Amino acid sequence: MNKNSKKQLNNRLARLLPALEWARGYRGSLLASDMLAAVIVTIMLIPQSLAYAMLAGLPAEMGLYASILPLIAYALLGTSRTLSVGPVAVASLMTATAVGEVATAGTLDYANAAIAMATISGLMLLVLGFLRFGFLANFLSHPVVSGFITASGIIIGLSQLRHILGIQGHGDTIIELSATLWNNLADINPLATATGLAAIAFLLWARRGLGPFLIRCGVADRSAGIVAKAGPVFAILATTLASYFWDFGQQGVALVGEVPRGLPQLGMPSFDLELWSQLAVPALLISIIGFVESVSVGKTLAAKRRQRIQPSQEMIALGAANVASGLSGGFPVTGGFSRSVVNFDAGAETPAASIFAAIGIGLAAMLLTPVLYFLPKATLAATIIVAVSSLIDIAIIRRAWRYSIADFTAVITTIAATLLFGVELGVLAGILASIGLQLHKTTRPHIAVVGAVAGTEHFRNVDRHNVITHRNLVSLRVDESLYFANASYLEDYIYGFVAEMEGLQHVILQCTAVNEIDLSALEALEAINHRLREQGLTLNLSEVKGPVMDALQNSDFLQHLSGKVYLTHHQAVKDLKLDEIEPYII
Amino acid sequence: MNKNSKKQLNNRLARLLPALEWARGYRGSLLASDMLAAVIVTIMLIPQSLAYAMLAGLPAEMGLYASILPLIAYALLGTSRTLSVGPVAVASLMTATAVGEVATAGTLDYANAAIAMATISGLMLLVLGFLRFGFLANFLSHPVVSGFITASGIIIGLSQLRHILGIQGHGDTIIELSATLWNNLADINPLATATGLAAIAFLLWARRGLGPFLIRCGVADRSAGIVAKAGPVFAILATTLASYFWDFGQQGVALVGEVPRGLPQLGMPSFDLELWSQLAVPALLISIIGFVESVSVGKTLAAKRRQRIQPSQEMIALGAANVASGLSGGFPVTGGFSRSVVNFDAGAETPAASIFAAIGIGLAAMLLTPVLYFLPKATLAATIIVAVSSLIDIAIIRRAWRYSIADFTAVITTIAATLLFGVELGVLAGILASIGLQLHKTTRPHIAVVGAVAGTEHFRNVDRHNVITHRNLVSLRVDESLYFANASYLEDYIYGFVAEMEGLQHVILQCTAVNEIDLSALEALEAINHRLREQGLTLNLSEVKGPVMDALQNSDFLQHLSGKVYLTHHQAVKDLKLDEIEPYII
Repeated sequence: MNKNSKKQLNNRLARLLPALEWARGYRGSLLASDMLAAVIVTIMLIPQSLAYAMLAGLPAEMGLYASILPLIAYALLGTSRTLSVGPVAVASLMTATAVGEVATAGTLDYANAAIAMATISGLMLLVLGFLRFGFLANFLSHPVVSGFITASGIIIGLSQLRHILGIQGHGDTIIELSATLWNNLADINPLATATGLAAIAFLLWARRGLGPFLIRCGVADRSAGIVAKAGPVFAILATTLASYFWDFGQQGVALVGEVPRGLPQLGMPSFDLELWSQLAVPALLISIIGFVESVSVGKTLAAKRRQRIQPSQEMIALGAANVASGLSGGFPVTGGFSRSVVNFDAGAETPAASIFAAIGIGLAAMLLTPVLYFLPKATLAATIIVAVSSLIDIAIIRRAWRYSIADFTAVITTIAATLLFGVELGVLAGILASIGLQLHKTTRPHIAVVGAVAGTEHFRNVDRHNVITHRNLVSLRVDESLYFANASYLEDYIYGFVAEMEGLQHVILQCTAVNEIDLSALEALEAINHRLREQGLTLNLSEVKGPVMDALQNSDFLQHLSGKVYLTHHQAVKDLKLDEIEPYII
Repeated sequence: MNKNSKKQLNNRLARLLPALEWARGYRGSLLASDMLAAVIVTIMLIPQSLAYAMLAGLPAEMGLYASILPLIAYALLGTSRTLSVGPVAVASLMTATAVGEVATAGTLDYANAAIAMATISGLMLLVLGFLRFGFLANFLSHPVVSGFITASGIIIGLSQLRHILGIQGHGDTIIELSATLWNNLADINPLATATGLAAIAFLLWARRGLGPFLIRCGVADRSAGIVAKAGPVFAILATTLASYFWDFGQQGVALVGEVPRGLPQLGMPSFDLELWSQLAVPALLISIIGFVESVSVGKTLAAKRRQRIQPSQEMIALGAANVASGLSGGFPVTGGFSRSVVNFDAGAETPAASIFAAIGIGLAAMLLTPVLYFLPKATLAATIIVAVSSLIDIAIIRRAWRYSIADFTAVITTIAATLLFGVELGVLAGILASIGLQLHKTTRPHIAVVGAVAGTEHFRNVDRHNVITHRNLVSLRVDESLYFANASYLEDYIYGFVAEMEGLQHVILQCTAVNEIDLSALEALEAINHRLREQGLTLNLSEVKGPVMDALQNSDFLQHLSGKVYLTHHQAVKDLKLDEIEPYII
């Protein structure tokens, strides 16, 4: 093997396994930072893992399992230095919805379906990543993502109310949830409610007030900021102790109960073709939503340290994390915003921090589970409610409304569909609405009649500027690529326009904004050329872009064109205008 | 009622009922032309109606029923003067496929489902037409339509082979059809085969040779041309007589058999929610395909006489025709190419010709049906095979291949999916492929670095032209509207570009081809602006179009922009270039 091919191999390896890069230069100073961050993240991840397992309708230990191997898989393969993966709110809700369709919550089938879900979603992400299909994520517009997460946050909050109140209340939509909560309102458990509300109050205060309070108590600024993030741990400790001493279980408060002790058993998820095909669409949705969420967190953090992430490799890393979750009895995971920010703020320098955090969670699974027996579910619900309250972004509605009707329609459609029909239809409706609106805009393109700005070679819209035009020719600037969806509109527009003009000899299309002419549009142009010729008019093009010109040269359109193709619009007008007719200003 | 509002009302009525316009000026000379055309069209429609009913798997009389009221409905509401509606090949195949999923061919349920199909499709077209959703048809690109019709033609031809051979051979895809034909090859009926092949040979000859032959026999040119179109009638007459005299039925040749005599009974189609919901998607596909076919025929003919058609009103007229078909025991109809051309060539001046043709078919239904008893099905199959052979347009594949990879992919996907998975999946795959390819193209837009053409104010791609650039600034022309699907690509491109340039101070985006900036793209621009500012660079825009500028002014982007917005790119470069650095030519 010569030197060059060895270097190539190394490069390829480094691309496939980004861990090689940071592992090579790993030093003691990094170790200290990463270890500290890992301790803090572990403390934060324990309550989150338990809570999101409950949100997904799964036993608590599955939350812990989903926070061990997936972290290690992402650490080896991911390109973000500080992203922290694990169970997150929206993906857990989507898991609950999808798995709830194929199995009953609380059964072994349900847990197995969630494990299968992680595996399928992981395999899909791996395939999409290797095929470099990361661009799929681009079809989720910002309004759709914001609207979807906002609506999911509302549904999650509402779904957790039942644990706060200690009643039954299942459902996937705002209507189902409200109805079942309302019907069971008589069964409220006052002690559970008091626990839940106290935890919410404490957590809300902890977010704003705990940091400043600790600083006033003399804790250093940075430590205070970090400890403040550990609010949920304090809430869990306090309510678990209260539950133990005053025997909340006896008083009808739902507790987490028996949690098996030890590390997850590795095993192949059951492959059941029918189950897998039922879960395929939801798994794809979870994959894409999770990927978009994760990449956006990764990008934000990378930008702060002038690092960059590679979307396709991120897809592969996230895929591996989900497969790892499936192999170790977990459920779908993705990069979480709050945990990644904590990891970043706590000073994590490399993905080794995540590996240490995984070890931390592993230790917790081996040692701490007996303590969890007495933890009231209301406390976990409180941590979820407080966490999702920050997902709700009502401002996007106002912002979209101010900016454009299409963006506003997309965001409203997504929110309404998610609230009324659940997460799957919600995200699908959002994607379809935004793509449909985008396509619809291009079906009736803006076409401007342009004239020369006096004394220059520039042409501008006659409706907006004071420009010179000529009676024997018309300059049209089509503000859109020409393709099948607007080809017939262009035809109709030009025929209608020409029918109303007297003394016209030439039509010039200024193609500055035409980035493409597809075969359907080419046929429309041929028809226009033919029809104008019959009426004694010539069709001319100006300022055709290179790639478009290349395509036109692959057809015989240019041979049949009644007019010419001009490099500049100015040249076209100079050539074609009749001098004896005075230019006039519209 | 004052004069003005009366005029308005008249205008509105004329728009809703285009028949008012032609009926008002109807004169005797028009009557003669229209009557002659009607006689010719009637003679042509009888075999077509019977054949397409057979293709749809329906009793022969339903073909006649579908050619009476629908013609009258279209004549009153349509905007084309010469379009002739009725059963057509592709819609009949689509009906057979869709109805075959919910009922067994030959049963009453099957016929009722076909009637329901016409009704549903008609109602859909009415609603879409009133909502002015005619633009939906634009999403069928020319390659998709050509590919779909070509593949449908192949399937139709193959499906009719069984009648020629006198064997069984059902199926919706090329594989199913080939397999069942192959398996039943032992049962070939030689007499049916001989009849069918003779009819095919005669019809093929009649197309090319009958006209010239008649002219040589002394018939006037125009009459010869028209009589030549009546080839199928001669084939039917000859084979019916042969079948009667030599008792083909006794020799195992399938005959049309008993056809009820008389006009169709009017009645409400049965409303069965389950049936309707099963037929909804196929009905929508038939509606859109039928509409596209019909409008393209209508446009072609209208252009020849400098008339115009209105797509939304066409949708309403076609909807009414289908509802009329459903109410009178028919099946889905649309504007047919061959019959409309015959109507046009025979000299039809107004839609009255279609009303007279409807009367003609009505008379046939009352008087001629006993004669049809002896008509061999092989003859009808022969007329279908010869008719669809002209639908097959293999040239589109070569044309698309030469022109662009996207158009080629769309046409191949449509043909392959239609042949392998049937008409419904075929047309859906074609639509999705063409939309997906179109969107995919816009996700990675062409971005050109531009420089000034010496001595002018024009800027062109540095890779294609000899232009002047400056070391301290870069001019980028993004050849695409900026929206959610390419927002992050733009971000990555600019960051990557800027990272490689030394001594850069300004980035100028030339926005001539940016026809839209949506909220997601606006956020990307804000992020770019922010990041460039951190790196000590300014972001500038030039030649922003009016509608885009209007949208930007609805946000606070312009207040935060580190650079400026320039009316011309020339001005931007003049303002920002450093004079002490020599311009250089790339």
